[in-house]
Amino acid sequence: MIESKDVQDIARGAAILGAGGGGDPHLGRLLAENMIDRYGPVTTVALEEVPDDAFVVPVAMMGAPTVIVEKPPSGDELARALYAVEAVAGRKVTHVACLEAGGLNSMTPIIAAATSGLPLIDGDGMGRAFPELQMVLATLDGIAATPMAMVDEKGNTVSLETIDNPWAERLARSATVDMGCSASIALYPMTGPQARRALVPNTLSQALWIGGTITRCREEHRDVARTLAAELDGVVLFTGKVADVVRQTSGGFARGSARLDGIGADSSSRMVLSFQNEHLVADMDGEVVASVPDLICVLDADTGEPVTTEAMRYGFRVVVLALPCHPRWRTAEGLALVGPAYFGYDHPYVPVVPSER
Amino acid sequence: MIESKDVQDIARGAAILGAGGGGDPHLGRLLAENMIDRYGPVTTVALEEVPDDAFVVPVAMMGAPTVIVEKPPSGDELARALYAVEAVAGRKVTHVACLEAGGLNSMTPIIAAATSGLPLIDGDGMGRAFPELQMVLATLDGIAATPMAMVDEKGNTVSLETIDNPWAERLARSATVDMGCSASIALYPMTGPQARRALVPNTLSQALWIGGTITRCREEHRDVARTLAAELDGVVLFTGKVADVVRQTSGGFARGSARLDGIGADSSSRMVLSFQNEHLVADMDGEVVASVPDLICVLDADTGEPVTTEAMRYGFRVVVLALPCHPRWRTAEGLALVGPAYFGYDHPYVPVVPSER
Repeated sequence: MIESKDVQDIARGAAILGAGGGGDPHLGRLLAENMIDRYGPVTTVALEEVPDDAFVVPVAMMGAPTVIVEKPPSGDELARALYAVEAVAGRKVTHVACLEAGGLNSMTPIIAAATSGLPLIDGDGMGRAFPELQMVLATLDGIAATPMAMVDEKGNTVSLETIDNPWAERLARSATVDMGCSASIALYPMTGPQARRALVPNTLSQALWIGGTITRCREEHRDVARTLAAELDGVVLFTGKVADVVRQTSGGFARGSARLDGIGADSSSRMVLSFQNEHLVADMDGEVVASVPDLICVLDADTGEPVTTEAMRYGFRVVVLALPCHPRWRTAEGLALVGPAYFGYDHPYVPVVPSER
Repeated sequence: MIESKDVQDIARGAAILGAGGGGDPHLGRLLAENMIDRYGPVTTVALEEVPDDAFVVPVAMMGAPTVIVEKPPSGDELARALYAVEAVAGRKVTHVACLEAGGLNSMTPIIAAATSGLPLIDGDGMGRAFPELQMVLATLDGIAATPMAMVDEKGNTVSLETIDNPWAERLARSATVDMGCSASIALYPMTGPQARRALVPNTLSQALWIGGTITRCREEHRDVARTLAAELDGVVLFTGKVADVVRQTSGGFARGSARLDGIGADSSSRMVLSFQNEHLVADMDGEVVASVPDLICVLDADTGEPVTTEAMRYGFRVVVLALPCHPRWRTAEGLALVGPAYFGYDHPYVPVVPSER
């Protein structure tokens, strides 16, 4: 069960799992709290409890996070997207799911579940956030992104049935741009057995725990980044000050890079983070120290709060944390879908190795 | 009834009504003949005979004619688009209609009717061809373009439900570009009374007559352009040689202009034709002599055959004919939708005045 009091921690925790992407959690959090206050708590279902005859449909906001923060969903668009999938599929949705762990996109399924009255699965489609639609474990299982529906705040609906998931991405991306660079989407309808295999379990519980940990660490004067690194098998890569951010919204994405000048123990180093909605590559003094599909997470150095790519500003003091991705992303087929080469980088993927405790 | 032997004349006649747009008739003609040979003649229905409880759905190819000629529909895509509209609307289509009079787009409804076995209405949505989806008389009547479906040759389907017809154009145009600059579309579903008001009657019969007239004039050594001008209340504007054509395929359209150097009685003059799929403006020696919404039709000076905008080539000897548009296009609301100002021209609309007989 997700109550209003849980929402803030889930949003903060998911924003860390979102690797800088998945949208700013703040507005989504307010909307999710509002919907729970209006419609009551959201029932959650563990992945292993999803019945075989379930019709599971993940939801999300699609578009450039820079734009999404300026026009968050009003509440009913996500439910309308679910109903549009039902119309094409000819089946009633039984469970809502989270497509990606990310600040806003951990909130969208809560909003959809609250407004539709459907139970919400404790899991997500990738164990992090990724910028393109086909980048979910479901694609590795041969599950189609379509029937898929997209809804905008004006009232337009686009339904897609495509021959493969990259075609869903392509057609949906253009429609998202037309819709003003953001759309509420419902896609990857799955049966129970498909969902149990293709969704990453316990995402919302883990996000809730991460959000709570940020608060507890602050109260106990413990280091948030090092605590999360220790508990989640990650590594603290760098502490620095944002010296420059270059960004542009192109092709429906927020793309760019941020240069960090080291402080403290890192004062003689520099890091460059490259992003496409999410952070993709962390380069330290000319060497790649982490890259997709591992999670490159940026935290406020003072508070431990997540910093999304669109919130990166000159002068921010940040800590860069790397967390290991879901093991299926580290397979050859996983890397073909979301590895550095897909994003145009010519360096090989070097997995994050946990710090020694 | 449309038999295989009628198809060529309909295609040629509609290519003249298409004002240079609506696609090259040749490939569409071969496909329509092939489909009639396979499935039998197409039953046609006069507009006044369409019953009140009809569910009429016009079809067309959308995209840049320059591209469409390189990948015409395979035959079943138009029927698939009709079925996709049925799925969203929850109603069976009873009649196919022609969206626009144009070379290829006079053939697409014949192909759709032959493959689906549905009757075809003798009429079209605008009495000519226009480059954008909302440019039909139905828009003047407040009829929605959606539910609309788009199908590509690869097997992708996009269904749209939009808040207005310009939004249907916008979303469909992007999807058309993604689909490789051409798509088979079904849209503007109408009841019988709506169709009787919003469709232009007798388009296919008229096209058949024009096609036959071209042949008869040639056999009788009569001037095709002057014969059509006399019969259709139009005017022969210019005879010249194509001296230059500038074209580009941008935003899903074929845009450009053609410069004609006068020959014969026009040898001291020049004409510039501007087009966006269709011819939009005819400028003679710096003066606009015809413009949208009237029909600017280019004919081969030797044969009287229609020349589409994408077929214009250096050295072609052509006659430029202007025909009056449907009277509803000359109203204030008609001109707001399809007049020169909409296409970015600052000159007022000057209606074509028939030559004296």
